[in-house]
Amino acid sequence: MNDQLSKLFEFVEENKERYIDELTEFLKIPSVSADSSYRKETRKAGEWLENKLKELNVDTRMYETPGHPIVFGSLEQNPNLRTLLIYGHYDVQPPDPLDEWKSPPFSPVIEDGFVYARGASDDKGQLFAYIKALEACVKNGVEIPINLKFLFEGEEEIGSPNLQRFLQENLDILKANAVSISDGHQFAPGIPAITYGLRGLAYFELEVTGPKSDLHSGGFGGLVMNPIHALTIILNRLKDENDKILIDEFYADVLEPDEEEKKLIAELPFDEAGLKELLGTDVLFGEKGYTPLERKTIRPTLDVNGIWGGYQGEGAKTVIPAKAGAKISMRLVPNQTRERINKLFLEYINKVTPPGVKVYVKTLHGANPVLIDRKLPAMKAAVKALEMGFGKKPVFIREGGSIPVVNMFAEICSIKPILLMGFGRPDDNIHGPNERFDLDDFIKGIKTAISLFFCL
Amino acid sequence: MNDQLSKLFEFVEENKERYIDELTEFLKIPSVSADSSYRKETRKAGEWLENKLKELNVDTRMYETPGHPIVFGSLEQNPNLRTLLIYGHYDVQPPDPLDEWKSPPFSPVIEDGFVYARGASDDKGQLFAYIKALEACVKNGVEIPINLKFLFEGEEEIGSPNLQRFLQENLDILKANAVSISDGHQFAPGIPAITYGLRGLAYFELEVTGPKSDLHSGGFGGLVMNPIHALTIILNRLKDENDKILIDEFYADVLEPDEEEKKLIAELPFDEAGLKELLGTDVLFGEKGYTPLERKTIRPTLDVNGIWGGYQGEGAKTVIPAKAGAKISMRLVPNQTRERINKLFLEYINKVTPPGVKVYVKTLHGANPVLIDRKLPAMKAAVKALEMGFGKKPVFIREGGSIPVVNMFAEICSIKPILLMGFGRPDDNIHGPNERFDLDDFIKGIKTAISLFFCL
Repeated sequence: MNDQLSKLFEFVEENKERYIDELTEFLKIPSVSADSSYRKETRKAGEWLENKLKELNVDTRMYETPGHPIVFGSLEQNPNLRTLLIYGHYDVQPPDPLDEWKSPPFSPVIEDGFVYARGASDDKGQLFAYIKALEACVKNGVEIPINLKFLFEGEEEIGSPNLQRFLQENLDILKANAVSISDGHQFAPGIPAITYGLRGLAYFELEVTGPKSDLHSGGFGGLVMNPIHALTIILNRLKDENDKILIDEFYADVLEPDEEEKKLIAELPFDEAGLKELLGTDVLFGEKGYTPLERKTIRPTLDVNGIWGGYQGEGAKTVIPAKAGAKISMRLVPNQTRERINKLFLEYINKVTPPGVKVYVKTLHGANPVLIDRKLPAMKAAVKALEMGFGKKPVFIREGGSIPVVNMFAEICSIKPILLMGFGRPDDNIHGPNERFDLDDFIKGIKTAISLFFCL
Repeated sequence: MNDQLSKLFEFVEENKERYIDELTEFLKIPSVSADSSYRKETRKAGEWLENKLKELNVDTRMYETPGHPIVFGSLEQNPNLRTLLIYGHYDVQPPDPLDEWKSPPFSPVIEDGFVYARGASDDKGQLFAYIKALEACVKNGVEIPINLKFLFEGEEEIGSPNLQRFLQENLDILKANAVSISDGHQFAPGIPAITYGLRGLAYFELEVTGPKSDLHSGGFGGLVMNPIHALTIILNRLKDENDKILIDEFYADVLEPDEEEKKLIAELPFDEAGLKELLGTDVLFGEKGYTPLERKTIRPTLDVNGIWGGYQGEGAKTVIPAKAGAKISMRLVPNQTRERINKLFLEYINKVTPPGVKVYVKTLHGANPVLIDRKLPAMKAAVKALEMGFGKKPVFIREGGSIPVVNMFAEICSIKPILLMGFGRPDDNIHGPNERFDLDDFIKGIKTAISLFFCL
């Protein structure tokens, strides 16, 4: 490590208490984006960030949206330098159920090295690490060798409804060589990770209609195709007993991992017993021929997310319903695309629908899968930064879910790579009661951010 | 026809207007058993019947129950004569939706030969025909060659919750050689029918449980058996693509119809085009190798009556639910029994449940199937009576549903046969708005009842 970084890391250690005090101040603002009664407070959290950036000479302004404002700041040293865009969100999940919190969600409490508060890990603590990293450089008169841009939105927890438009309308100011997003967690406590792959999503709703009205099963049982039965036939034709998806050409574009990647996945310290305990099951289940970790990351899956039809109340009602429905989604992997899967799904549903019913398919939201080249220089810089910040070489992982914001940066702004480096822990209780953030991880995050400024 | 019957039929024709006036009076009483705010009115309808019977010298009394009272009357001429027990119900379905009635449900209106009112066909008009049949005999001084008993309950539309106990506690006064129930309809207008078979019912609720809590399909898709998927696998293993039920030994006790019965069914004027129009479908569907009418009467069927699990709201939620459920019922035919089918179903569910989930099966209500010997003398008498009353030989039919009251008379009181002779029409809108009863059918019903008194 060079002298400059040593000096900065020392400064961080010396200022730890002050950082925690400031984070506590930030966590006291109840910026619940989903609840309109917190509208003012949510804005206040954005303004708080705006001030913090301005204090560090970042050219910052608030961009109004129909919802909560976007805080955007730019610290351009030299147009010839590389630029890092830092993304985060200042809004938080609603704190319910309130009675399960050991201390009030917006009155931060420090205990056993953690700060307990809504938003501590998701995402206030993580984004604030970048601001404190910048502060360390500024206060020590250390010149950062890259340009920095900051984009903090206030609507991530409600699906970022206004971010896409903001990105489209502000492409010019958003130009960057990499985006850094710290809004997740390490692979396990003490094992930092870089997420280089995300699965995509294709989500559909099916409505199966049969007879024009509900029928009595006594008078009509044996005469018509029951829409629930037709629906279960369709759903069963989507997967075989080994959980292989049967939609024609579904796997045609699936990228098989090379030997190196297979090895990466196999070497991850996967805790199967712990997973089983978490799920409350003795049996893991999924596509034959792949390990559990492969199945949830590099393989596409199909799940029925909801099903309904007929009588759901207490007791018995002898009805043959006029209709039934289901929500079905697929997790996609590179190089599958939503567009192609939508087409294949619709064709297949038409093919496997039994006679006597009609099926209406509604396409709901989705996302394309993401795969970031691990060999890109910026990815190597991120590895180095995490190693310096956390004192341990990060693992490379692919996640099973999708992050809409990542798709937006990749597809709208064409920024590559996107550095997904979560500073939190898997058991930070984000979205649940007693959310927390390890204060050591907070300090390690600040050091990682500083390192990234110098490694990129 | 003998002179005595001719004289009685003539009397009926002469008194038609008065009968209709009296029926109208009966229909004005809003005896809605399901609605406690109509409790007094429901009782009033019972009292009205009690008086009508007493006026004809029938020894009548009200039997109180925890719900609405049972009216029981006996006209015993001679203990050595055969006895006919007449069953009917004085309660009616709730009249909702009120705004779809062309005239108020409890203000009877005569139009185009029909009387429009709630309860007109189900069952006030039909049971009243028996009282007017008795009145014709009494007023003309004609001695009836059998003993008569009347049992009118006020809770049929809410499932006869107190009838079983009444029957069990009063077996001595209920002794009879046949029961007559007119609470249904002709095969088609102008084609009277005797129902000699009813299907039974075995009803179950399934709950499939998997992971101990709902999971995100991104993070866990590919790791667990989704309870909805497990449920659809189970449901699909219940029937094959030809709608044949796959439960082991399910068909073992099914009575195959003999050639004579097959011919009876084949000769019924079954209106397939009309049924398709009623159902709003181009395709009828059911067990291969049987006609539609066979499928809904002499063959057992299995239907999923309800299904639920996961997210049923608007839009997309990427959940793998912790549980899913379904209601499943089977229509049984002679000589299947609920007891045996319950056992076979439970065994089969255990056999076909896939790994990774648990299934809990709850047994809900049911009924055994019923088959009445068409060759019994009382059945022949019913044929003759309907032929005289309606001027046309009745057809023999088996119905797809079950009638709990029939099971009670057969199983508790051991009365055989039960004569199911509906005087109504299939399009009388029972249970719906604008219920009606054809006044010609009313008069034909009175003549049928008189004939039965003399033919039995």
